Amino acid sequence: MSSNRVVVIGGGPAGLEATALAARLGSEVTLVEKRPELGGTPIAENYAALTHGFQSAEDLVGRLIADATGSPAVEVRTGAEVTAVSGAGGDFAVSVSSGGDEDQVAAGAIVLATGFQHFDPGRETQQYGYYEFPDVIALQDAEAMLKAESFVTPSTGRPPERVAFIQCVGSRDRQIGNEYCSKVCCGISSKQAIEVRQQVPDARVFIFYIDMRMYGYWENEIYWPAQEQHRVNYVKGIVTEILAKNGRLLIRGEDTTMGRPMEVPMDVVVLAVGMEPSQGTRTMADLLGLATNKYGFVETVHDTLDTVTTNVPGVFVCGSVTGPCDLDDAISSAGAAGAKAVAFLRAGAGVPA
Amino acid sequence: MSSNRVVVIGGGPAGLEATALAARLGSEVTLVEKRPELGGTPIAENYAALTHGFQSAEDLVGRLIADATGSPAVEVRTGAEVTAVSGAGGDFAVSVSSGGDEDQVAAGAIVLATGFQHFDPGRETQQYGYYEFPDVIALQDAEAMLKAESFVTPSTGRPPERVAFIQCVGSRDRQIGNEYCSKVCCGISSKQAIEVRQQVPDARVFIFYIDMRMYGYWENEIYWPAQEQHRVNYVKGIVTEILAKNGRLLIRGEDTTMGRPMEVPMDVVVLAVGMEPSQGTRTMADLLGLATNKYGFVETVHDTLDTVTTNVPGVFVCGSVTGPCDLDDAISSAGAAGAKAVAFLRAGAGVPA
Repeated sequence: MSSNRVVVIGGGPAGLEATALAARLGSEVTLVEKRPELGGTPIAENYAALTHGFQSAEDLVGRLIADATGSPAVEVRTGAEVTAVSGAGGDFAVSVSSGGDEDQVAAGAIVLATGFQHFDPGRETQQYGYYEFPDVIALQDAEAMLKAESFVTPSTGRPPERVAFIQCVGSRDRQIGNEYCSKVCCGISSKQAIEVRQQVPDARVFIFYIDMRMYGYWENEIYWPAQEQHRVNYVKGIVTEILAKNGRLLIRGEDTTMGRPMEVPMDVVVLAVGMEPSQGTRTMADLLGLATNKYGFVETVHDTLDTVTTNVPGVFVCGSVTGPCDLDDAISSAGAAGAKAVAFLRAGAGVPA
Repeated sequence: MSSNRVVVIGGGPAGLEATALAARLGSEVTLVEKRPELGGTPIAENYAALTHGFQSAEDLVGRLIADATGSPAVEVRTGAEVTAVSGAGGDFAVSVSSGGDEDQVAAGAIVLATGFQHFDPGRETQQYGYYEFPDVIALQDAEAMLKAESFVTPSTGRPPERVAFIQCVGSRDRQIGNEYCSKVCCGISSKQAIEVRQQVPDARVFIFYIDMRMYGYWENEIYWPAQEQHRVNYVKGIVTEILAKNGRLLIRGEDTTMGRPMEVPMDVVVLAVGMEPSQGTRTMADLLGLATNKYGFVETVHDTLDTVTTNVPGVFVCGSVTGPCDLDDAISSAGAAGAKAVAFLRAGAGVPA
C-alpha cells in the first residue's frame, strides 16, 4: 500500500523549499514544524540581512513560506513534532503529536530538514566569558541588534567605539570535538562587520581570524568591500583570553602576521559561533535509524556523489542536517531532496523511470 | 503545443545528475554533449581521486553516467552541439548539430550544465613561467600524473625532491579581473599534496597560500591529515616570481607569517588555477539570452534564494555555470535544476501544482 505523500520534517528554508518543489512535482506533502511558526532559524533567531546581497531574511524566507503554503497539496502542521515512525520506504506511518493530540500520517517518503543549532559559546570556551560578560555576545545576538537597527554595547546601551569579531568559536577545535569548519561564520561576521560600520560609523571594527573562508563570490561581494569601502580591520591572530578592565573588555592573544602578542580594549566582542546538529536532527536521526558521523550530523550514502540520499530507503536529507552549509547549499540540496522523494514514490508506485 | 521533453546541455557530473533525475520524474530527456564521451571535465581532464574520500573519479562519475544513460526515457547525443534555440519556455525548438547533420528537438524546458574551464595560467601571469618552464604545471597536469601514478619532475622524468603548490592563480586577483575565489583549489591542492607524499614519500611538499579555504568537512577530512599524517608544509605567503637556476626552479616571494622574503628551490611547481566559465557556458548564455555577471557566469533570478532559475522562463542552470562550485554544489544544484525543469513542464501542461 504505497502513499503519494511526502512528510517533510522541519519548516526552515530547506524544508520549505523541499515542500514547495515536491508539491509542484505532484505529491501531497505534510510539513511538520516544531515551532509555532515557519521560517526556521533565520526567522526564530531574528536574522536581519542575509549574505545574499544584504537582502532581508524576512522577505526572502517569506517568499519560501508563501511558495510552500500556497499549494492545496500542502498540509502544514506547526507546533507539531514527529514522535515515531514505523513501516518502511513507500509505506511509512509517521506519528505526529500536536497540542497533546497524536495522529498518524501515511507517507511514502520522508525529507528531513531539521537543521542546525548555534554552538553554545559558554560550553568549554570559558576564556571568552560569554556567560560572565554582557558585552561578549554571539553572532545571533549581534544579528538581532542589527535587525533592530540598534547595535549597542549591551552593558551601557551606548554605541560601541570598538567591536571585535572572534572567528572559529566552536569550530576547527579538537578540544571541543568540532574539528570541522562551520563554513558560514566568516561570511556572516564580515557581513555584520559591514552593517556595524553602517549603523555606527564611528566604531572601529576588527575581525580576528585564522583563515578568512570567503569562498566563491563572498570574496568580491563581501570581503573586498568590507576592507576597501567599510574599513573593517582583519587581523590574522588568535585570541586566547577576554578580561574585564576599567569597565571595558580586554582581549589578549597573538597577532600571527605581526608575530607579536596583543592586548586590545574592546566595547563589544562578537563570538563567531559555529554550527552543530540541532536537537531535532539528533532526535530524528536516532528515531529514523540514520547513519551519523561523529559530530551527530547525518551521513549520506557512500561511494556515490549523492548529497541527499540516506542509508534508509525513502528517507532523504537536506540543508544543515548533513553538516555546516550556507543558504545556497540548503536551497539546492532541498530541491534535490524533495525531488528524489517524489522520484522514490513514483518508482514504488510502479511508474517506469 | 507543449512538450514533455527536457534538453540538458552538457554531459558532466551536473548534466548527468539533472538528466537522471528528470527522467525518474517522468520526463523525456535529450542530453547533448559536445565531447565524444560523457563525464565532463573530471573524465576529459583525467581526474584521479576526488575530494570525496579520495574515491576514484572514474568510478563515481561512471555511476552518474550509468544512471543517466540507463533510462529508456533518455536520448544521449555525444559529439553534438546546440547551435540555435527558438521558441519559448514550454515550446522550445533546439537545433542540435552532429557530424554535419542538424535537426531540431522539441523541448519544454532546458537545463544548462556547460560548466567551467580551468584558468589559463599563461595568461597575464608571466611571472609564473607556465609556458616557459616544463616543471611549472597546473592542477589538472598534476592530476593526470597522479592518476597515472607517475608523479615526476617533467623535465627529468625523475621523482621530485621538492614540490610547491601556489594558490589563487587566476582567482582573488583584480588585475586579472577574477576577483572571486574559485572555492575548490585549496581542497584540490591539499588532496594532491597528500597524494604526492604517498606516491613520492621522500618529497617535501609546500603549499603557499593566502587563506586556506578548507570549509566544512574538508578541514577535518583533508586539511588536518595533510598536516599531521602527511607532513605537508603550509606557508602563508605570496609568490611573486619563478626563475630557473642551476637546472631547478627558484621561487621568490614573501613569507607573510614570518614577515620575511623567501627564495626557495623547487623541482615542481603546481599552479592552483581557478575556474572560469567554459566557452560552452559563454556561448549558450549568449544564445539563450541569459543574464550573466561581469565574469561571464550565468546569474540566477534576484530577490529569491533560488539557485537554478534564470531570467528566461523554462531555462534552468546548475553546476559551475553560475560560478565556482565543488562537486556537492554541482550535484545538489543539478538535482534541483532537473526537478524544476520537470515542474515547469507540469505547470505548462496544466497540471495543478
